[in-house]
Amino acid sequence: MSNSFGKLFSISSFGESHGKLIGVIIDGCPAGLAITAKDIQKELNKRKPGGNPASTSRREEDKAEVLAGIFNGYTTGAPICLVIWNRDIDSSDYARTRFLPRPGHADYPSYVKYGGFGDYRGGGRFSGRITASFVMAGAIARKLLKIIRIEVMAYAVEIGGIVARDMEFDEIRHKIINNPLGCADDEATHRMIASIEEATNQGDSLGGIIEAVAIGLPAGIGEPVFDSLDAELAKGLFAIPAVKGLEFGIGFEAARKKGSEINDPFTIENDKMATNSNNAGGVLGGMSNGMPLIVRVAIKPTASIAKKQQTVNISEMKNAKIELKGRHDVCIVPRALIVVESIMAITLCDFALRAGLIPRIIK
Amino acid sequence: MSNSFGKLFSISSFGESHGKLIGVIIDGCPAGLAITAKDIQKELNKRKPGGNPASTSRREEDKAEVLAGIFNGYTTGAPICLVIWNRDIDSSDYARTRFLPRPGHADYPSYVKYGGFGDYRGGGRFSGRITASFVMAGAIARKLLKIIRIEVMAYAVEIGGIVARDMEFDEIRHKIINNPLGCADDEATHRMIASIEEATNQGDSLGGIIEAVAIGLPAGIGEPVFDSLDAELAKGLFAIPAVKGLEFGIGFEAARKKGSEINDPFTIENDKMATNSNNAGGVLGGMSNGMPLIVRVAIKPTASIAKKQQTVNISEMKNAKIELKGRHDVCIVPRALIVVESIMAITLCDFALRAGLIPRIIK
Amino acid sequence: MSNSFGKLFSISSFGESHGKLIGVIIDGCPAGLAITAKDIQKELNKRKPGGNPASTSRREEDKAEVLAGIFNGYTTGAPICLVIWNRDIDSSDYARTRFLPRPGHADYPSYVKYGGFGDYRGGGRFSGRITASFVMAGAIARKLLKIIRIEVMAYAVEIGGIVARDMEFDEIRHKIINNPLGCADDEATHRMIASIEEATNQGDSLGGIIEAVAIGLPAGIGEPVFDSLDAELAKGLFAIPAVKGLEFGIGFEAARKKGSEINDPFTIENDKMATNSNNAGGVLGGMSNGMPLIVRVAIKPTASIAKKQQTVNISEMKNAKIELKGRHDVCIVPRALIVVESIMAITLCDFALRAGLIPRIIK
Amino acid sequence: MSNSFGKLFSISSFGESHGKLIGVIIDGCPAGLAITAKDIQKELNKRKPGGNPASTSRREEDKAEVLAGIFNGYTTGAPICLVIWNRDIDSSDYARTRFLPRPGHADYPSYVKYGGFGDYRGGGRFSGRITASFVMAGAIARKLLKIIRIEVMAYAVEIGGIVARDMEFDEIRHKIINNPLGCADDEATHRMIASIEEATNQGDSLGGIIEAVAIGLPAGIGEPVFDSLDAELAKGLFAIPAVKGLEFGIGFEAARKKGSEINDPFTIENDKMATNSNNAGGVLGGMSNGMPLIVRVAIKPTASIAKKQQTVNISEMKNAKIELKGRHDVCIVPRALIVVESIMAITLCDFALRAGLIPRIIK
Repeated sequence: MSNSFGKLFSISSFGESHGKLIGVIIDGCPAGLAITAKDIQKELNKRKPGGNPASTSRREEDKAEVLAGIFNGYTTGAPICLVIWNRDIDSSDYARTRFLPRPGHADYPSYVKYGGFGDYRGGGRFSGRITASFVMAGAIARKLLKIIRIEVMAYAVEIGGIVARDMEFDEIRHKIINNPLGCADDEATHRMIASIEEATNQGDSLGGIIEAVAIGLPAGIGEPVFDSLDAELAKGLFAIPAVKGLEFGIGFEAARKKGSEINDPFTIENDKMATNSNNAGGVLGGMSNGMPLIVRVAIKPTASIAKKQQTVNISEMKNAKIELKGRHDVCIVPRALIVVESIMAITLCDFALRAGLIPRIIK
Repeated sequence: MSNSFGKLFSISSFGESHGKLIGVIIDGCPAGLAITAKDIQKELNKRKPGGNPASTSRREEDKAEVLAGIFNGYTTGAPICLVIWNRDIDSSDYARTRFLPRPGHADYPSYVKYGGFGDYRGGGRFSGRITASFVMAGAIARKLLKIIRIEVMAYAVEIGGIVARDMEFDEIRHKIINNPLGCADDEATHRMIASIEEATNQGDSLGGIIEAVAIGLPAGIGEPVFDSLDAELAKGLFAIPAVKGLEFGIGFEAARKKGSEINDPFTIENDKMATNSNNAGGVLGGMSNGMPLIVRVAIKPTASIAKKQQTVNISEMKNAKIELKGRHDVCIVPRALIVVESIMAITLCDFALRAGLIPRIIK
Repeated sequence: MSNSFGKLFSISSFGESHGKLIGVIIDGCPAGLAITAKDIQKELNKRKPGGNPASTSRREEDKAEVLAGIFNGYTTGAPICLVIWNRDIDSSDYARTRFLPRPGHADYPSYVKYGGFGDYRGGGRFSGRITASFVMAGAIARKLLKIIRIEVMAYAVEIGGIVARDMEFDEIRHKIINNPLGCADDEATHRMIASIEEATNQGDSLGGIIEAVAIGLPAGIGEPVFDSLDAELAKGLFAIPAVKGLEFGIGFEAARKKGSEINDPFTIENDKMATNSNNAGGVLGGMSNGMPLIVRVAIKPTASIAKKQQTVNISEMKNAKIELKGRHDVCIVPRALIVVESIMAITLCDFALRAGLIPRIIK
Repeated sequence: MSNSFGKLFSISSFGESHGKLIGVIIDGCPAGLAITAKDIQKELNKRKPGGNPASTSRREEDKAEVLAGIFNGYTTGAPICLVIWNRDIDSSDYARTRFLPRPGHADYPSYVKYGGFGDYRGGGRFSGRITASFVMAGAIARKLLKIIRIEVMAYAVEIGGIVARDMEFDEIRHKIINNPLGCADDEATHRMIASIEEATNQGDSLGGIIEAVAIGLPAGIGEPVFDSLDAELAKGLFAIPAVKGLEFGIGFEAARKKGSEINDPFTIENDKMATNSNNAGGVLGGMSNGMPLIVRVAIKPTASIAKKQQTVNISEMKNAKIELKGRHDVCIVPRALIVVESIMAITLCDFALRAGLIPRIIK
């Protein structure tokens, strides 16, 4: 079940970018959770294009529909099926580029893997659009986490090489609400926007770094050695097409430090165990340590760019050029924030169920 | 089964650092693979302490023993059980520090998670020693990969902030054989050793970065969207205690580049599809693209250091100091190379079986 | 993922009896299989009510719709989503009996398990209607099995205590095509029909026994010791609501025989290994032995009957009576044949993929 | 992981009949359970040969050894490894019959499946001896079930066609303690013993039926539609080599009854929901209904008999005769009781953990 993720709280993604729909099944959600299509729509809207300067396409709003598993406003314990019907699709350009795999895109390996039978229109299963299914499932996961007071939040810390300054979570939570890029640093945001505009004019694209944090996670969450907290989260995050790397806490920086510099000393804070610093990013030995869980995700620039690129016609096996039309995001970081947040929420929800933190029936 | 990894080629780790043994079960290995305890020992020896300047302890050699699944020199198709009996263990110091969780170590979250029932001696299940089980399983995985001509190789590219220069795989393969740190750059190695000696004298520790590469992987390996090549590899690698981050290809650097700079253009090379560069690190959309698969893993400095550190006595909930005795590795990078290599081999073996590349009976 | 079944060829069932739809996701189907909604409809029609004397309800025909995973007439390798939209539903009677669990039905345990949040209309997830999702998935599984020349067939061997005589597979295959009960014995069929009519008049219901057979299975299929052929098939078959028992080959009769009477002697037939008898039902040690795989499934009488029954009002915890209206099948055996056949096909398809018998791309 | 069973409480079996050992890993056992090798030995002794008239071999006692996961008398939360070292093995006769597959045994399909690489000595992985691993794991499962007051009990209800009379559980529990066949009916036992003696003299073997019951199971246990209570239990039970069928409650008899005869009417008993009869065997719609869970398992006669049998020499592909020496059980039912009981305990333990009935730390 390679399109499924999670052990007790599991999601299964299906649908294609230019097919009839994008959907998700959530299996294992406790019964009795109050949820409406509106709750799911609210999260989904955070992923919609057009809401930020990095996204120029103006596609109609995606609309979440509940097909199963919710009855009279509550989850039933049965599998929940949520879908978005694809509308107003123009797949004409894809026939033209069908045998011209886009550099940096899944086109080529998927052509080999599926023998050319894959739905190539709009990237098919390998479109960023697939992540809308994660967001719908994430809406439910977040509602469950709220019950046990776990908060999940993602924000942009770097776009096109411009780095936001370090800030406290309370400030970040407040500042990102109205920021067009989901970045807490207003000053950096201005420069990021300028950079995005420049890339737009060049027919190019930009990458960035998303930081996601979970606050309120008790110590001991995660199932080592293989289903550890960082391992499962990493697995989930790599389902997001553009992710090329991730790190917990100070991450790669740890490689350059000494043990005495990065070991977070334990201390007692409000009669509770805490650490003076959080270089570990809240995870030790694959388990949460009670401090905020912090992961940083490297997002590569959108592969689909307007600039002419070198490729190979795989039906004729001849060198060729590809020039993409259509409206692609210049930088997906702002829209990917809710996706990263959703994967984190889904992963934590599964762990919370495994740890017995969430009851089987919500009352 | 949180101590298991893999779908068709699965490994299950068991045993404790200071218990009777460290072991692994390999379930799903095809029948008919010629393998001996010697083959496994050869890989295991690469992990042994004392072979490099970063490792000062002089423990007796670990010896692999086959308990099940191999008959008359061949795998039988039944679960393979490999173990190392623990010997000459001195657990006396651990009783002293039982309630003093080491900063940066799994001691505290595991104490919470298992209610204090865990085997605390030598870190129990949370010792780096557990990775010996991965290495034993990796020995079998590598033998299987050799049949389908997939090579896996790991080497140190950074230790204590000292970065090795970029080199071709052919040169790397040749140079690392006799390098004491498993680094291909002799000049950098000298400086790394000096840095290790300095840290040793300070009672401190160092981290580093390991790069691992798989050569010969055909395109289309990986099972998106969730069991993708990078996702499964990431999950496996985070089972190694000191890993704090990882990246594929140019990884985090991608966040700072433009699409036109990092999209690897396709081209025809020897009548085969190839890319002019390999910024993707061999993985696109969660599937191999036929180019070398490259992952870089951030290893934090060893948490157990000789320097006095601040902690909390968790039985009394009072601030306390901890000072560790015993012989801990100053930098685990050299010994971790074979561990990273093993996890990569195990992961690829599982994918190769899922893709039908390895037959069920080896002849 | 308790609503999923299968390891490499997996199906996930969703939807409710009186909700919007009944659906299934098939994950792991090779790319390139030619399939149309018509192919699926053909199998689904075998489950439709009204086609046999044991089924009196006249509900509109269920119509299969492909929502994802099939493109231009071929499977793409992506998850396949098939649904039936529920229509013309009258749920009015269920509100009346909501707190009156039907004897012999899942009403009571599901009420406890899901805290009363379950969709009670028409039995919700615990309706026989759910098995339509198995049939849709089975249609695909059977197409795959046909490629490797494995035939799956199910037929009624007992209804209401009337036992069909033993017959050869070739005769059975021919005779069941037009038999209204899916029974190969015409004479027994007459008596079965009389028995069904009697039960109908009494407001009662009947059970029966279904035999299913797979022909063409090579030896060595099954993954002992836990994922064995009989074990997985048993697990799958118990997802059919009315199943209360099953047996392979002579099954329970084996308990009354001596070893010398039931051990099937090996012999050479057309230069191939065979057995003189097939008491084992084609499975030895959890693996196929090359002979036809034979399983018999005990189907209990429909729980929903017109007769007044004793129950408890679970909201008031008082003894009560229940009298069901509506049109329930008197005996589900004829409609369940295609369901049993489908589960067998799905299970064998998964094993065939695990054994490498079916290629990843169908050409 | 075809040698593993269970989702949260999982067991993995390894080892061969005439190899070094038989072993089991239990992954997911809560920490803090008090358990000793003696507790495990006590269960294992129930499987030992020589304790009943149906078992003539006099092999030395199997001795359970704890290799990992138990520390200072308590489970640690880490994988538990339990083994029995094989001793005093005489494999000489197996070389003689290596290419002569025993009728009714796994020899032939396993030869095909593993290409002749399997350990053929003593049946290798396909020996009844493998079930000792289930019994060791079952010892732990039963200790956990005791905490939540669930009792599991298995007893012989039929041997060689002789049927024990129906009795109440309280009487059965009392009577089976000293019965040599684990049958509660003394009178039937006498006739069973006579039948066993007759079969022994004929060089033949006998089958029988085991009934297993779980008392104290609350309603709502099981995870429909695929991980249902009966489905998982069925899957587990088919891992026992000689099982050819199973049924819940009245099982196959249900096929011959009317709905009004077998639907168990609900009633209130001691202010609690109950049913007047238990034809369902405690399971409705794949979930427990609060009544005793009852399963009956058909055990075929031992395949290995002294009588000369017809087979094929698979290395020469010629018809041949096989005559087995050695001491095989005439009827395995008495020794299989604890095996059936263990599989039931393991299955229920997994469900209890999934339902949150057993805490993650036992205090």
